[in-house]
Amino acid sequence: MLISSSSNERIKLARRVRDGRERDWIFVEGERLTRECLVSGLKMEMAFASVDASAEQEELLRELRCPVFRLPDTLLESLGDTISTQGIIVIAERPWASVERLLAVPHPLIVGLDRVQDPGNVGTIIRTAEAAGASGLLSFAGSADAFSPKTLRSAMGSAFRLPVMVDVAGAGALSMCRGRGMQCVAACGEGEVDYDGYDWRQPALLILGNEGRGVDSELARACDTRVRIPLRAPVESLNVAAAGAAILFEAARQRRQGR
Amino acid sequence: MLISSSSNERIKLARRVRDGRERDWIFVEGERLTRECLVSGLKMEMAFASVDASAEQEELLRELRCPVFRLPDTLLESLGDTISTQGIIVIAERPWASVERLLAVPHPLIVGLDRVQDPGNVGTIIRTAEAAGASGLLSFAGSADAFSPKTLRSAMGSAFRLPVMVDVAGAGALSMCRGRGMQCVAACGEGEVDYDGYDWRQPALLILGNEGRGVDSELARACDTRVRIPLRAPVESLNVAAAGAAILFEAARQRRQGR
Repeated sequence: MLISSSSNERIKLARRVRDGRERDWIFVEGERLTRECLVSGLKMEMAFASVDASAEQEELLRELRCPVFRLPDTLLESLGDTISTQGIIVIAERPWASVERLLAVPHPLIVGLDRVQDPGNVGTIIRTAEAAGASGLLSFAGSADAFSPKTLRSAMGSAFRLPVMVDVAGAGALSMCRGRGMQCVAACGEGEVDYDGYDWRQPALLILGNEGRGVDSELARACDTRVRIPLRAPVESLNVAAAGAAILFEAARQRRQGR
Repeated sequence: MLISSSSNERIKLARRVRDGRERDWIFVEGERLTRECLVSGLKMEMAFASVDASAEQEELLRELRCPVFRLPDTLLESLGDTISTQGIIVIAERPWASVERLLAVPHPLIVGLDRVQDPGNVGTIIRTAEAAGASGLLSFAGSADAFSPKTLRSAMGSAFRLPVMVDVAGAGALSMCRGRGMQCVAACGEGEVDYDGYDWRQPALLILGNEGRGVDSELARACDTRVRIPLRAPVESLNVAAAGAAILFEAARQRRQGR
């Protein structure tokens, strides 16, 4: 079915999903991410493709098992979130994770995001967390949407697989994790323990904070431990996704090697 | 001195610096980065500020000891590389590092960038490298400019301090480092050694590769060792700045703890 008007209701819906104004769906752009989304088993609502799709794209579109709407290239480009849409846009159901799914492993390691603002950082942390073996991610209220188009691109498919809960209250996350016997650890420049001196084999919630201000000071005080990464002066802080990678792979190393 | 025309020669020069078409200078935007640049001792060529600069900005401008040109806010905004310029733009000399300066430490750890494309990744790696105690960075031909406005913002001042050489040939970097008794190590998905099984106390060049394709396969083969980061399936790769952080802080950990 061909859509040629930008005021078509389906185009308007897709634009609202793209802009974060429809929280039941996600906006997936490009062949590669669409394949990741397909493999993850998320339900596809509808797809938009070029009238001149390639043979590979046509095959992918058939696999989606959802209505496919054809758009002229100018309309497809204007709907896209990137400079070049790579020919396919899919509206899929938003992944949903329960507390039970996050904690359904013997020694959970969960990442908490306290007002991390940059969607690229959020996506990179989701990708790194899955790669390092974390069991899930809690995005506290005030963080960038873990399922925005830009986050999905940085997460490279990990956002479709890693259990992620959004809009969680920081204090609520702490009591939930404590109630399950987990340690709460904040990454802070003024932490009292070096990150590699901490025993990451325990079940733990690791909280990473805002790009400029770090973890909220009250939340950090409420944690059981605050870890710091030793930095060579005069450097005062790391990019939050870089700090997350250093800590999460130290945790993975300890869990692999038995510390 | 007030400039009101966008065709003024100084504005044109600043625009060329911003767009990477003048390689003798760098484009520094915002109060915070200007302060970092000032402290690093780089020579300032000229500054542009709002006609309505704040008292703090006026004090900073006096410290720069370079000609300051006043612009109407609309012109300042259009000259800026960011959405909001924060009132100050400085044209400063481009930092320059010699091989000797990169290697003037007992056990050098140098980062090589093989066609890393994203300026945000390059800047984050420069910041992480300085923080982890690396002695310098070699940017191979084909990587994003280590001194573009976006890179400088991600590097948060580290690009003014860490010795960085740009447009180096990859093969040339290998022979230079070998000639100084250093080990050449490529970070690859198919590396034969886990990154935390490698002895990073040795003098080493660590090469990080392109976002999509990794380190060039010929260059990787020419290295002494290829290290991999163990990743939980189905994740196949990390963001290059996240991979750099994991490896560089493992190196820092070994050097701090004596492995």
